Amino acid sequence: MSKLTISKRGREMPPSPIRKLVPFAEAAKKKGIKVYHLNIGQPDIETPEHVLEAVRKSDFKILGYSHSAGNESYRRKLVGYYEKNGISINHNQIIITTGGSEAILFGFMACMDAGDEVIIPEPYYANYNGFAVSAGVNVVPITSHIENGFALPPIEDFEKVITNRTKAIVVCNPNNPTGYLYSKDEMEVLKQIALKHNLYLFADEAYREFCYEEEHFSAMQLEGCDDNVVLMDTISKRYSCCGARIGAFITRNETVYNTALKFAQARLSPPTFGQIAGEAAIDLPDNYFDVTKAAYKARRDLIVERLNAIPGVYCPNPGGAFYAMAKLPIDDSDKFCQWLLEEFSYDNQTLMLAPATGFYGSVDYGKDEVRLAYVLNLEAISAAMDCLQKALEQYPGRQ
Amino acid sequence: MSKLTISKRGREMPPSPIRKLVPFAEAAKKKGIKVYHLNIGQPDIETPEHVLEAVRKSDFKILGYSHSAGNESYRRKLVGYYEKNGISINHNQIIITTGGSEAILFGFMACMDAGDEVIIPEPYYANYNGFAVSAGVNVVPITSHIENGFALPPIEDFEKVITNRTKAIVVCNPNNPTGYLYSKDEMEVLKQIALKHNLYLFADEAYREFCYEEEHFSAMQLEGCDDNVVLMDTISKRYSCCGARIGAFITRNETVYNTALKFAQARLSPPTFGQIAGEAAIDLPDNYFDVTKAAYKARRDLIVERLNAIPGVYCPNPGGAFYAMAKLPIDDSDKFCQWLLEEFSYDNQTLMLAPATGFYGSVDYGKDEVRLAYVLNLEAISAAMDCLQKALEQYPGRQ
Repeated sequence: MSKLTISKRGREMPPSPIRKLVPFAEAAKKKGIKVYHLNIGQPDIETPEHVLEAVRKSDFKILGYSHSAGNESYRRKLVGYYEKNGISINHNQIIITTGGSEAILFGFMACMDAGDEVIIPEPYYANYNGFAVSAGVNVVPITSHIENGFALPPIEDFEKVITNRTKAIVVCNPNNPTGYLYSKDEMEVLKQIALKHNLYLFADEAYREFCYEEEHFSAMQLEGCDDNVVLMDTISKRYSCCGARIGAFITRNETVYNTALKFAQARLSPPTFGQIAGEAAIDLPDNYFDVTKAAYKARRDLIVERLNAIPGVYCPNPGGAFYAMAKLPIDDSDKFCQWLLEEFSYDNQTLMLAPATGFYGSVDYGKDEVRLAYVLNLEAISAAMDCLQKALEQYPGRQ
Repeated sequence: MSKLTISKRGREMPPSPIRKLVPFAEAAKKKGIKVYHLNIGQPDIETPEHVLEAVRKSDFKILGYSHSAGNESYRRKLVGYYEKNGISINHNQIIITTGGSEAILFGFMACMDAGDEVIIPEPYYANYNGFAVSAGVNVVPITSHIENGFALPPIEDFEKVITNRTKAIVVCNPNNPTGYLYSKDEMEVLKQIALKHNLYLFADEAYREFCYEEEHFSAMQLEGCDDNVVLMDTISKRYSCCGARIGAFITRNETVYNTALKFAQARLSPPTFGQIAGEAAIDLPDNYFDVTKAAYKARRDLIVERLNAIPGVYCPNPGGAFYAMAKLPIDDSDKFCQWLLEEFSYDNQTLMLAPATGFYGSVDYGKDEVRLAYVLNLEAISAAMDCLQKALEQYPGRQ
C-alpha cells in the first residue's frame, strides 16, 4: 500500500453489526444446515401485486430525472396518505428520498455540523451510527431498559447529557430494535424537552402501521413544535418495498425544508421506478394493513410466548414493528450468535439472530440480549424457537 | 422562527445554479413562449426499449433489499462491459451506487476528511460543490481556458495549489461542462501528479461512450497507480437512464473499496428496478452507441458551426459528452440567461442556457460564457440558434 490514506471517518465508519455473521451463516448452509433468518428486517410478506404491476405497466419512453423533491403527483397523493393518518401537511413539505436512509442523512446534514450531538435512546437502529459518522455528528446514547419494555428514559436522563452542542433527539416509533411503541404522553415529553432546549426532534416512523394494541401517535401530530419536528419516513416495511428505495423527508420548518432540498438537488432525483411503486401503494385498499398486521401480530404473539417459556429467557411484549428483544442467559451475544451458526445445529437446523451489542452506543451493553425480527411464517418461527431452546441448553457460555 | 438553527454546511450548500432560472422559464411558458431547453443534461434520446422491457417483465414477488454492493449478477456482467472498454476489473471491485452522485459522495467520504482539499480543473460539474460541502471538503479550482478548448492546465498550476491537506484530484472525462476529451497524454500527466504527491485520482467518466473523433482513455487504464484511481460511473447518460439512479464506484484499492462499502451498507442497497435496467443494458448490441453517438455528433457539429457563425461568439469544438461552452459578447451570463427568459422572444420563441458562473469555483469567472447541452434534435437546435443570434443583437448588456 502506498502512502495514500483513507479518511478518519472512513476508519470510524462501523461495519454492519449483522453482516459480520454472514460468512458463518453461509458456511452453515454449505454444510447442509437450514438457517432460520431472524436477523434482518427484510419482510417476507409479498409486495402487493398492484404495486409491482404499476411499475410493470409504466409506459414512458424516456427514463428521465424527476424533480429533486420527487414527482409532484406522488407528493400530492402522499398528502392524502398522511391525512388518513392524522398528519396534516402539504406537498411542498415533502421531499421524496432514496429510502428512509437518505431522509435521515439529509436531516443530520441540514440540521447539524461536525462536532454537534444527537441524543438517541439506546438500543437504537445501528445505521444511525453510519449517518452520524458521515455527518461528523456524535451520537449520545441514553439507555432504555428491557425491564420496563424499553420505555422512554426519564427527562432527567436527557437533561443530564444535554450540552451546548446538542442539536437533536432521534425517536424511532415504533422502535427498531425493541418494538417498543412510544405513547402519546411519551411523545409529549419529547416535545417539552425539544422546546425547552431548542432541539430538533427527528422521528423515524418506518413501522407506523405495525402497532398491535395501541394507536400510533406521530411526532407530526404534536402541537406547537412545527419547527422542531422532522419526519423521516419510508415505504420499505410498510408495503414490503425495501428494494424500491423510496422514503420521505417531511417537515413544516421551511428553512430546514429548503436546506434539505439543496442536498436533494445535488443528488438530482430519487429513483423513478420506486416513485411509481410508492405512488401506486397509496391506492391500496384501506384494509390492506389489516391482513399484514394480523400476520405480524400472530407471529409476535407466538415468538414472545415461546421465548418467555424458555428457562432464563425474558422478552417484553413489543407494541409495534416486527422486532422483539430478548434477554438470554448467555455470556456474550456476539459469541452466542456466531456459535449458533458455527457449532450448533438441532435436527440439522439453526437460527441467525442479531446480537444486541450492535444496537447500543454504550460499550459492552447488550451482551445478554439479542434482536429477533419476526419476518418468517409461524411454522418457521416455531422451528427456530425449538432450535433456540436446545441451543441455550447446550451453549457452553450459558450463565 | 425559533432559536433552532440549520447547519453551517446547510447554509453553505449551493443551490442548483440552473434551477434558479426555472421560475423565469415557467413564466415565459405561461406567456405562450416556446422555450428551447439547452440548459440541462437530460438526454432526449429514448431509453432503449430492451432496458425498459426488462423492468416491465420482472416477475419477483418481493421487492427486497439487494446486496449493499449491488446484485452480484449485475456486477459480474459489468465486468464484461468494462472489459470491452479496455478496463480490467473483477466484480468485487465494483459497488453499485444510487446514481453517479452517490459514487462521488462515497469517494469524498471514504478518502477525505473535513478540511481536506480536492483539486478540480474549472469549469467543473457544479454538483461537485454539493458533495464537497456534504463531506466538509474544500474544492480548490485550477482554471482551464476556452482559448485552448479547456485542455488540462499545466502541471505547475496543480503544484502551485497542492498543500498537505490536498488528498485528491477530480477529472471528468469527457468533461461536463466543457465537452473536452482529455488525451492519454493528459491522463498520464494526472497520474504522475497523483503518484508524486500521493493523491487519489477520482475519474468521473459518465460520458465515456460519447467521444466523436478520438478514443476515450480511462483513468482505469493507467498503469502503476491502481491504489490511486477511483472510477465514478453512471448509466444515466450512457443509456438515457437518468431516472434509474444507477451508478458505480470502482477501484482496485482494496482499503478504499472496503471503506466505501461500509458507507454503502449504512444505506442498505441501491434501487432494485434500476439495477434490473442496468443489467439489461449490458446486453444491448455493440452497435447501440453508433446510433446515439451519430445523433449527438450531428448536433454537436451543427451547434458549434452555428455558434461560431454568430458575430462575437467563440465555441471550441468539444471532443466528447453532449455539452458545448461558448464565449458570448455579454456583460454577465446570469443576467443574460435571465433576460432571455424574461424579456426576449423571437417569433414567440426563446432558449434557456446555463450561465457558466455556476461551473467555476473562482469568483466572477464565467461571466461571458454559457453552457449549451445539445440534447434537442437538429431542428430545435437550429431554431434555438436563430433565437440566440437575434438575442445577442438585442441584448442591452452586449459588450
